Amino acid sequence: MHELELSKAFTLIEPGPVVLVTTRRAGRDNIMTISWTTVLDFTPRLAMVTGAWNHSYAALRERRECVIAVPGIDLLDQVVGIGTCSGADTDKFARFHLGAVPAARVQAPLIAECLAHIECKVTDFIEPYDIVVLEGVAAWVEPARAQRRMIHAVGDGRFIADGRRYQRREAMAAKLPPGV
Amino acid sequence: MHELELSKAFTLIEPGPVVLVTTRRAGRDNIMTISWTTVLDFTPRLAMVTGAWNHSYAALRERRECVIAVPGIDLLDQVVGIGTCSGADTDKFARFHLGAVPAARVQAPLIAECLAHIECKVTDFIEPYDIVVLEGVAAWVEPARAQRRMIHAVGDGRFIADGRRYQRREAMAAKLPPGV
Repeated sequence: MHELELSKAFTLIEPGPVVLVTTRRAGRDNIMTISWTTVLDFTPRLAMVTGAWNHSYAALRERRECVIAVPGIDLLDQVVGIGTCSGADTDKFARFHLGAVPAARVQAPLIAECLAHIECKVTDFIEPYDIVVLEGVAAWVEPARAQRRMIHAVGDGRFIADGRRYQRREAMAAKLPPGV
Repeated sequence: MHELELSKAFTLIEPGPVVLVTTRRAGRDNIMTISWTTVLDFTPRLAMVTGAWNHSYAALRERRECVIAVPGIDLLDQVVGIGTCSGADTDKFARFHLGAVPAARVQAPLIAECLAHIECKVTDFIEPYDIVVLEGVAAWVEPARAQRRMIHAVGDGRFIADGRRYQRREAMAAKLPPGV
């Protein structure tokens, strides 16, 4: 994987993809599927919505770090499978045949099969809304992957893959932050 | 437009589309382009990230309501145009040839050319993060529109249209909330 400048890491989340979030606690890696995320700023500061109903939440509370991994559409059935079983009784890396790759700045692993990653520190919990605030500390992309279409969840059991791309960089120039 | 059950309204935002947010203040309608949003719960409670740097923010603060409109890819250049000029000196409905349609529960208007809408009350501002918390109070879809592909912003001047759709309802059944 190639390192991505932190100033560009928000561009992995702004399109609104379903992501896989890895954690590590007591020597065990876990993964959850999350589609409720948003960029908060260009630091990048990010938010995701999760709570005690997810087994990974205890790891976020205790270790205060995670990796956000962006899967391509080729991983759709693994994303659905990961989102419908629990790390309480399942080794998800083993069950879904995914490779855990050491990260640089956090203990939680990258996922070998994903398109891109943001290593994150947990910096805050906004309790009444189950919002977890994250700060990206390193980011990685897999530039060699031909299949780069991300997945978007509708929330009713349907999913949408990325389609056609449009370049509007010139028209957007005044709004782009430095380093993007 | 056809009314959409509120229990399904979160499915308009979960895919992570760029949205147009309308407000009305002192008799004037305005529109802003927002791509930093997330679902918070199935009520639906939603969050968007914006602040005083947007002219619409004063209307959100004062009127405490807005409409989230979901544009299709046919509106890409209007979405870019709306996001790169200010309501302080521009009547965006006029400039971008968009129709303002009365909403049912809020004063801010729907946008005739959009695919779907959520009428929202502003219920909270999470100050340190510029998060505006919204509660959907009515929702609408335009079922007759053939072009239903939404827009996703990358954040670097590129945009992505929805592509192929995948049905995984059976596999996701245990995770779907009631009424979806």
